[in-house]
Amino acid sequence: MSRVNDLQMTWDASRKSWIESANQPDCDFSLQNLPFGVFSDARDSARRVGVALGEVIVDLAALQAAGLLNLPQAASGEVFSQGSLNAFIALGRDAWRSVRVQLSVLFAHDTPALRDAPVLHERVLVRQDQATLHLPVEIPGYTDFYSSKEHATNVGSMFRDPANALLPNWSEMPIGYNGRASSVVVSGTPVRRPQGQLKLPDQARPVFGPCRKLDFELETGFIIGRGNALGEPVSCATAEDHIFGMVLLNDWSARDIQQWEYVPLGPFNAKTFATTISPWVVTLDALEPFRVAQPPQTPEPLAYLRHDAGPHAFNIVLELQMQVAGAAYAEVIARTNFRHLYWTMAQQLAHHTVSGCNTRVGDLMGSGTISGPTADSFGSLLELTWNGKTPLALAGGTRSFIEDGDTITLAGWCQGAGYRVGFGLCAGRVMPA
Amino acid sequence: MSRVNDLQMTWDASRKSWIESANQPDCDFSLQNLPFGVFSDARDSARRVGVALGEVIVDLAALQAAGLLNLPQAASGEVFSQGSLNAFIALGRDAWRSVRVQLSVLFAHDTPALRDAPVLHERVLVRQDQATLHLPVEIPGYTDFYSSKEHATNVGSMFRDPANALLPNWSEMPIGYNGRASSVVVSGTPVRRPQGQLKLPDQARPVFGPCRKLDFELETGFIIGRGNALGEPVSCATAEDHIFGMVLLNDWSARDIQQWEYVPLGPFNAKTFATTISPWVVTLDALEPFRVAQPPQTPEPLAYLRHDAGPHAFNIVLELQMQVAGAAYAEVIARTNFRHLYWTMAQQLAHHTVSGCNTRVGDLMGSGTISGPTADSFGSLLELTWNGKTPLALAGGTRSFIEDGDTITLAGWCQGAGYRVGFGLCAGRVMPA
Repeated sequence: MSRVNDLQMTWDASRKSWIESANQPDCDFSLQNLPFGVFSDARDSARRVGVALGEVIVDLAALQAAGLLNLPQAASGEVFSQGSLNAFIALGRDAWRSVRVQLSVLFAHDTPALRDAPVLHERVLVRQDQATLHLPVEIPGYTDFYSSKEHATNVGSMFRDPANALLPNWSEMPIGYNGRASSVVVSGTPVRRPQGQLKLPDQARPVFGPCRKLDFELETGFIIGRGNALGEPVSCATAEDHIFGMVLLNDWSARDIQQWEYVPLGPFNAKTFATTISPWVVTLDALEPFRVAQPPQTPEPLAYLRHDAGPHAFNIVLELQMQVAGAAYAEVIARTNFRHLYWTMAQQLAHHTVSGCNTRVGDLMGSGTISGPTADSFGSLLELTWNGKTPLALAGGTRSFIEDGDTITLAGWCQGAGYRVGFGLCAGRVMPA
Repeated sequence: MSRVNDLQMTWDASRKSWIESANQPDCDFSLQNLPFGVFSDARDSARRVGVALGEVIVDLAALQAAGLLNLPQAASGEVFSQGSLNAFIALGRDAWRSVRVQLSVLFAHDTPALRDAPVLHERVLVRQDQATLHLPVEIPGYTDFYSSKEHATNVGSMFRDPANALLPNWSEMPIGYNGRASSVVVSGTPVRRPQGQLKLPDQARPVFGPCRKLDFELETGFIIGRGNALGEPVSCATAEDHIFGMVLLNDWSARDIQQWEYVPLGPFNAKTFATTISPWVVTLDALEPFRVAQPPQTPEPLAYLRHDAGPHAFNIVLELQMQVAGAAYAEVIARTNFRHLYWTMAQQLAHHTVSGCNTRVGDLMGSGTISGPTADSFGSLLELTWNGKTPLALAGGTRSFIEDGDTITLAGWCQGAGYRVGFGLCAGRVMPA
């Protein structure tokens, strides 16, 4: 009971911080958010765990060393002096919650302990613009789903039959495939245009060369916080207990390579060259106040995919920005919302494990491209330009697909009353092949 | 030059060991083999690195502690007291070769150092039948290819059109897909029959239940010994330098789950419930004397998939045994050879990385089902029973697919003059869902 009360305290929208930048209404990293990441800086090149708050990073290793942060278990002293969140995540939900609650108190405007000890600030607080952010988790496995009905319908309309755009299996299960974990990179990492086999319509055999239809896919991803053993599926009812938090995810895609390679075993080289995620993992606890109902599901899913009554989606605004090479600024080219996703994260995880497949702490599960119902809410250039038929007119040039030097940035946030719980940015600039 | 001579010494077929069991002509673990694995035993439950020789395991950690094994680098003392081969593999080919050459000398029949120090034997030698073998590598990524022309033709004939069995892309590239690394298990691990969605022909919607068409796939796998950085493809010419060694691999497959789920993103739950590999990794160095030409390739592959002149396949006999539940013995139900594989390991790795995809030490790359040209050389029940049309009559019962309690065992070896370089067994028994 007290734990729930503690947790609700972190949701108190009126609670302000003595870190003034966290109180700006459009700041992603409010006192209500407290997302976890891994950083280093010029002063200390060792990677360590931090929490984003306003324009600073709270160095949890330093905070613990200063005696201002305690972990529930005695034997867990080293989890913050690590190059990934995995050891911390493995401590379990009680530890995640305890840390967030302690930070929520320590950084509240009326808590003097650290506020009035400026000599400690230099050790504990790092400016984000002076830090390097790293991949937050070591990812043992990466799975990507295909759970947006609008996206699947658009793709099916384009390449198959608009009257029967959805394949029969799509409405029965969260279709997914294994992705390549090794090439998941953190926001800011340049992305090299892949080369591969392209099958041109006027030639009998494929040619080798740089991808000509390079695209992004606007997605979110969730991070497994508690694994399951081989042979022991996770039920839909308990699936959310296995989720640590969420990130933004750009599933870069080479449409022409994919078109030629994907039958019958699915996309491979078209996707394995890079997947970008945002550096801050927003916990499910921080997203809790933004729960909304998921879309209705027809037909009713099979029993193993059925939820309890509670809402299982989240109201997360998702924004896609594109800065054309040489342009002075980025433009918003689409805006959608996580709540449009047809299959929920709980259903994705229940389906993933129903065969007996095991998951591990740090596993990344992508949502699939999240397209909304309107043409300005589609999550890929493939859809926004309808496979190049209607190029986008942007400052600096028109685009059917991504050209070298273009930068793609995803943003996402939950809008509270006067504050945000946001994800920061998930950006990547494309370099020549 | 001396290194090459050293290496060739390990291939000397006439070289016998003072471990008598290694000299039996049908022993997989001859002095010419020396495969690496990870084991523990009743005396010491800590996992550590060993080498199989005859009926014993050479404990490399103990051998090093006894001063009888040296590593090239000074700073690499801990690589054998590890639960996986990864740290040892990461030392590089010079270290792998050095260890094999030292063992080849130390265990040669005429080397007295250890032979005549029986007091050391208890510390250094462990009987295989008293040891537990573990997964030899920590696998950061698992990829499975589809490189047997005979297998792809059989599947295409069964489910599409016998006259156009091969899809157009198959002859142009080693088709592959990302597998699930978390559920790769070592030989001997029981395999639970998966449950999932099955689409029965007489019903409009899928039903949920245990797989009814459970199958094996006879494959080999290779282990990455040297990774490549993101954006830096491995050329076909240098690809073999990135391979540490090979294992046997059973890619368990739920044919009915696969049939319903695999369009358009490929197999997922049909494969993620278990993949079994053999416990001993046979190095490419040990396989060197058994190089043979790969099958001719028509059309000539694109430039990035072209080899130098040398042969790039290996003459590895592969045998499939099935012991029906309740039967007194296992029967050989197919025999094939790795040399039938159309795309070589070098081509697979070059294709995998040509997009810029990075690989890491310990990555596992499956060959795809290796079927031979004749009906008794097919690598799956799907092919052997032609999707259940011609069940196998075995001691203990007829089988179209695998039933609960059945045991599937893969064996594989290179046959030298009076000795073998073998893989041991890759076995799994199926338990009820």
